[in-house]
Amino acid sequence: MTRPLTIALDGMGGDIGPDVVVPAALRVLETAGDSVRLILVGQEDALVGRLRQAKAGSDPRLVVRHASQLVSMDESPAQALRVKKDSSMRVAINLVKQGEADACVSAGNTGALMATSRFVLKTLPGIDRPAICTMLPTVRGYTRVLDLGANVDSKAEHLLQFAVMGSVLANVNGIERPCVGLLNIGEEDIKGNEQVKEAAQLLAASDLNYVGFVEGDGIFLDNVDVVVCDGFVGNVALKSSEGVAKLIRHYMTQEFQRNLLTRLVGLIALPVLRAFGRKIDPRRYNGASLLGLQGIVVKSHGGADALAFANAIQVAMLEAERKVPQQIDAHLAALHAERQAL
Amino acid sequence: MTRPLTIALDGMGGDIGPDVVVPAALRVLETAGDSVRLILVGQEDALVGRLRQAKAGSDPRLVVRHASQLVSMDESPAQALRVKKDSSMRVAINLVKQGEADACVSAGNTGALMATSRFVLKTLPGIDRPAICTMLPTVRGYTRVLDLGANVDSKAEHLLQFAVMGSVLANVNGIERPCVGLLNIGEEDIKGNEQVKEAAQLLAASDLNYVGFVEGDGIFLDNVDVVVCDGFVGNVALKSSEGVAKLIRHYMTQEFQRNLLTRLVGLIALPVLRAFGRKIDPRRYNGASLLGLQGIVVKSHGGADALAFANAIQVAMLEAERKVPQQIDAHLAALHAERQAL
Repeated sequence: MTRPLTIALDGMGGDIGPDVVVPAALRVLETAGDSVRLILVGQEDALVGRLRQAKAGSDPRLVVRHASQLVSMDESPAQALRVKKDSSMRVAINLVKQGEADACVSAGNTGALMATSRFVLKTLPGIDRPAICTMLPTVRGYTRVLDLGANVDSKAEHLLQFAVMGSVLANVNGIERPCVGLLNIGEEDIKGNEQVKEAAQLLAASDLNYVGFVEGDGIFLDNVDVVVCDGFVGNVALKSSEGVAKLIRHYMTQEFQRNLLTRLVGLIALPVLRAFGRKIDPRRYNGASLLGLQGIVVKSHGGADALAFANAIQVAMLEAERKVPQQIDAHLAALHAERQAL
Repeated sequence: MTRPLTIALDGMGGDIGPDVVVPAALRVLETAGDSVRLILVGQEDALVGRLRQAKAGSDPRLVVRHASQLVSMDESPAQALRVKKDSSMRVAINLVKQGEADACVSAGNTGALMATSRFVLKTLPGIDRPAICTMLPTVRGYTRVLDLGANVDSKAEHLLQFAVMGSVLANVNGIERPCVGLLNIGEEDIKGNEQVKEAAQLLAASDLNYVGFVEGDGIFLDNVDVVVCDGFVGNVALKSSEGVAKLIRHYMTQEFQRNLLTRLVGLIALPVLRAFGRKIDPRRYNGASLLGLQGIVVKSHGGADALAFANAIQVAMLEAERKVPQQIDAHLAALHAERQAL
């Protein structure tokens, strides 16, 4: 009998902590089979109390593992690493390292999660720093964008590695030969910086399905499965997009609240607006992957609710089932061997 | 008697050319007083034909200036500069150089416009490359973002210059002491690249109203008058935002078109949706400024319609009235003198 697929959850991370993580875990178990096991890591009293509050019956698939410390949302990564050796975040990652869990999920602070993951799990051979990758909605479905902020001043070689890692993730999502685009700018006489020009050559020479440059709007409008960029640029692109979406929501609410008549119209349009809202609901895309590690770590948004956190758990489960780190490792090794042969 | 405020218009630029520029010029003259003069530059036949078609009576405020060549939208800047010495774009810029016009507006290709403007007008002392700046809507009003793609790999010193230029533009828009933010990323352990860290120090030491870092979403949600960033990053932020706005529009249309009932709801909600649409209408923000030149050049979106192009003309008129290049020059000289004194 094989061991059940086991996911460790940082029960205390994020802006809300157990009040989100516990209901999310219960939600996932509702539809998961017997072959799944979740480990809730954190302050036992808080977690058990929250389970009791949810009237959760005893379930052999749900285990609580005590951890005495917390990493706060504004704690420095160095501080978290040095002082918080029994934090819920650290213990969850340790469980992956020790082979007790196949993946872990945390809504805790990104810097600390990244630093602790690197320290505990180590990066794959040939990877300097892990990259952060998330799915985003497009006119035709979804795309994956990386890096989203773990690497600034990425070199061309890093962009190539991101492309490999993003392609593996797209494979896992059922896309056989994912199209890879390189984020660039179009409307000026230089057409990109040195790093991007060099990366374009590396990508074209690789065995990836590289389809060329993508501009910022192309992330959402082009038919590309993976968009590769430097972490600074990717982070700004992601956050700007979130900002515009919030701005649009703000203006739309304002217009529908203008007077009694517009409120009435809003009421009539509510089912349509809700259906539309579900389509672009960021909770559906929650769960960013830290790629390039010798283990699976998924970062949930700090402000995620139970639905969103449950989604991040599903991301971790899929990556664990499909052994994403091993696949990335194999692809990188093949890339390396191919170059040696040249 | 002072000479009227004169704006040269590249009549042939953009995806559409005279069919947009001529109606836009007529629209501006409808509300402009006698102290404004517009010079339509381009192929005389096409421009005069289009004026006749619009049944425009003779107006001493509107002059046609023949130029025999066109710069196409995909022409290389070097090619445009070398071969197209009698293009509508080049002649419009020449008019500014010769003092016949106070500003020029073109919807032509950005690279060629930038290269030709630099070649003909030259940059202000201490400016290496001009920057592109546009206004964007925010929850509280507007902000200005620069650079949007003219400069890649900008140094800290350039970011400081962008801040000075953006502040002058905000002044012109009636903001006495504009808040300046520096675009950065927050959620990781490095917190920005070297260039941004260094720029933050320069900005803090300057006499500008520097308020600190802004993340991508902060462009639209924070209360900042000027957002400063490298051109690669700014271009990606702008285009990503446009992409998301289009994606949201796509999904919303899709939901309202789902069936007969939702179409009916859409019809009822139409006035509210239109009012909302006007608020985020990109045409209202058309007209990007090329800053740092010894002259005023405003870039209209290539796909702009008459309303949008008219808006770009208004931007040029305001900058000409307020002598933006002279103001930028004075601010930069003061900055330089202050440093010498240290």
